[in-house]
Amino acid sequence: MSDVHEVCGRFHAAIELIGTRWTGAILQALLTGHHRYGEIKAVIPGVSDTMLSARLRTLESEGLVERHVIPTSAVQVQYQLTEKGMDLAPVVAAVVTWAHKWIPVPVQSR
Amino acid sequence: MSDVHEVCGRFHAAIELIGTRWTGAILQALLTGHHRYGEIKAVIPGVSDTMLSARLRTLESEGLVERHVIPTSAVQVQYQLTEKGMDLAPVVAAVVTWAHKWIPVPVQSR
Repeated sequence: MSDVHEVCGRFHAAIELIGTRWTGAILQALLTGHHRYGEIKAVIPGVSDTMLSARLRTLESEGLVERHVIPTSAVQVQYQLTEKGMDLAPVVAAVVTWAHKWIPVPVQSR
Repeated sequence: MSDVHEVCGRFHAAIELIGTRWTGAILQALLTGHHRYGEIKAVIPGVSDTMLSARLRTLESEGLVERHVIPTSAVQVQYQLTEKGMDLAPVVAAVVTWAHKWIPVPVQSR
């Protein structure tokens, strides 16, 4: 019984981190090679700048994302998944598989 | 680009359904063989009756869970995953694997 509780606590924390509004979509954007703020925003219809910035900061503080400032002529900021973030790839893949089987294509993207 | 948007919309809907507070834990409870209301509640420390009932109703209306009334001497209610719900097993397994690697054991279960 205590094992069930322990599994539950960690699973629970994980699924709620990943399931927070927009977080899953941001992880998927990063996993599919979108690293600049504008690129990430472009592939997530409906996300506001406030939300996207807030979620990227949370993902940074949770150790899932690293923010890199690249000193080109115009300074460029890139967001990269850490090892902890990259390790979510199988979770995202499993959700994509399920969603493609069970969730209808949205009529209008959010 | 339109492909990215489509994938995103369905993935997005799926991850936010699964990630809603308590829903992941309830799915895990059902997947690990807890089918009666009291059993489900017992393996999810901290969940209130209001939340658990509300989430079970949502999972029913989303087609993930079926509620069966079993007419024994004392009427028994059981919650069973549908095929759509059972198909989430690989998602839950992937989250458990990730959580066991990256999420510390909670000091005090919620």
